[in-house]
Amino acid sequence: MTTTIVTSPTKEVKIGFDEPFVIIGERINPTGRKILAEEMKNGDYSRVEADALAQVAAGAHMLDINAGIPLADEPKILAEVIQLVQSFTDIPLCIDSSIIDALEAGLSVYQGRALVNSVTGEDESLDRVLPLVAKYDASVVAISNDETGISEDPDVRFEVAKKIVERAADYGISHDRVVVDPLVMPIGAINSAGKQVLALVSRLRNELKVNTTCGASNVSFGLPNRNGINGSFLSMAMGAGMTSAITSPLHPEVIQAVMGSDVMLGHDPDCANWIRKYREAPAEGARGTRTSGGRRRRS
Amino acid sequence: MTTTIVTSPTKEVKIGFDEPFVIIGERINPTGRKILAEEMKNGDYSRVEADALAQVAAGAHMLDINAGIPLADEPKILAEVIQLVQSFTDIPLCIDSSIIDALEAGLSVYQGRALVNSVTGEDESLDRVLPLVAKYDASVVAISNDETGISEDPDVRFEVAKKIVERAADYGISHDRVVVDPLVMPIGAINSAGKQVLALVSRLRNELKVNTTCGASNVSFGLPNRNGINGSFLSMAMGAGMTSAITSPLHPEVIQAVMGSDVMLGHDPDCANWIRKYREAPAEGARGTRTSGGRRRRS
Repeated sequence: MTTTIVTSPTKEVKIGFDEPFVIIGERINPTGRKILAEEMKNGDYSRVEADALAQVAAGAHMLDINAGIPLADEPKILAEVIQLVQSFTDIPLCIDSSIIDALEAGLSVYQGRALVNSVTGEDESLDRVLPLVAKYDASVVAISNDETGISEDPDVRFEVAKKIVERAADYGISHDRVVVDPLVMPIGAINSAGKQVLALVSRLRNELKVNTTCGASNVSFGLPNRNGINGSFLSMAMGAGMTSAITSPLHPEVIQAVMGSDVMLGHDPDCANWIRKYREAPAEGARGTRTSGGRRRRS
Repeated sequence: MTTTIVTSPTKEVKIGFDEPFVIIGERINPTGRKILAEEMKNGDYSRVEADALAQVAAGAHMLDINAGIPLADEPKILAEVIQLVQSFTDIPLCIDSSIIDALEAGLSVYQGRALVNSVTGEDESLDRVLPLVAKYDASVVAISNDETGISEDPDVRFEVAKKIVERAADYGISHDRVVVDPLVMPIGAINSAGKQVLALVSRLRNELKVNTTCGASNVSFGLPNRNGINGSFLSMAMGAGMTSAITSPLHPEVIQAVMGSDVMLGHDPDCANWIRKYREAPAEGARGTRTSGGRRRRS
């Protein structure tokens, strides 16, 4: 039973085979968000704060923090945002950058054991990211691509993941501190992407014994009713053994799919979380059970 | 690749490992529907007709027909309803009764190759139902309980299913004509029911090579937001290899979970069905792509 532990000063999140699924809120990321990028570049973090609070309220267990803005001082901004977010939330963070200096700046101010996002199977990435992960006693997201790019062959992606896990061990980073992202392709472009990734998740869990994560919304890129596809994907991925996802908790379909699948997997004892969340909603089976207590309808 | 073929005079439905999931509409069943029971008993089939049409319009691929009304002439009613439904719909039917005479009456008027619902692992059931299934060249739903009841141990349920498949073979009914119902327990009462049934579905598919079905809504009995649980369950069950379900297509969450999971499994080439169904819905990703054509929003 592999468990990855990520902490803040007061909270510990376990990503694990026998744990409830971990939702890592994806919203604090200026990629493709022009206004947010401009604000962050100018040191205005008001939207970051609002996005962080909204994601926590919606059910995120961790938050991904990315400050990748062209021509900006990414290390400085990333460190500032991490400090800010840690000042008003208590959930652990995922420090997300492709720039080593930014990862180091983020890790140096982070309070707790972070999840670093990410290392790839490229030698340069392995050589530079893994020492940092070791130094700060962090865990790391391992993306299963290498110098040759992203293979469409899931067996190749498995081998890349295996290589990263082995290389991490050389730095004293045990396999339970490596969370593999098997890479989810858009199913509208590659119809076999779903079956492939489900099989890969299962192999990663059963053979490599690692936790897994993914950018869950990639799967529905270009399709209508994206949240519908995302929900089905998340349930199926959880059934195959996926243990976390970097996604938006702001979509009720995502939360519902994750919570429902936790129920199915026996990760919500007595369905207590499910009942607490949905008992007052006007859904079938809940009629006539409304209370006038102070419980919020959506937590 | 196991394929179960069920037909009407003009339509063939394939339940199979490489086929889209088959939704068997559950609504034409007087159990727990007092008004419907009373009407059917009095020969008033107007609600049956409306329910049949509504389920077909909502996306059912087959319809289950049950006429189990206390103190009524079930064989006569079942035969009449089957004839009626076949007069205005062209999808294949599932003939549902625990009374042998009713099954025989239904099979004798049914046009096509039906799915008989059901045989259990009890000797009396096997001895009486299987000859009928053989005689009418039908397929049969095999429920994995026997004289000892429903075991909570999935290994016992697997053995019961195996026994039914073997006994069916003695009557010349090949394993592709046996669709096993692994029995889905309410997860609110038995927290491990989800994991158990997912593992059982997988074994039934990989070891016994049979198609599977279930009364999908049982899983959420007693819980709020039942459709949310049902949707997660269906996606996970499909991921584990389930190929059909007896459920209500009238809940959009059920249709969405099934169609989304078909996309994920590569059973919706080019996502054509998904796009046709959701492209005009006001969902994320669909904005700006509305057409003014004659295509219906919901098929």
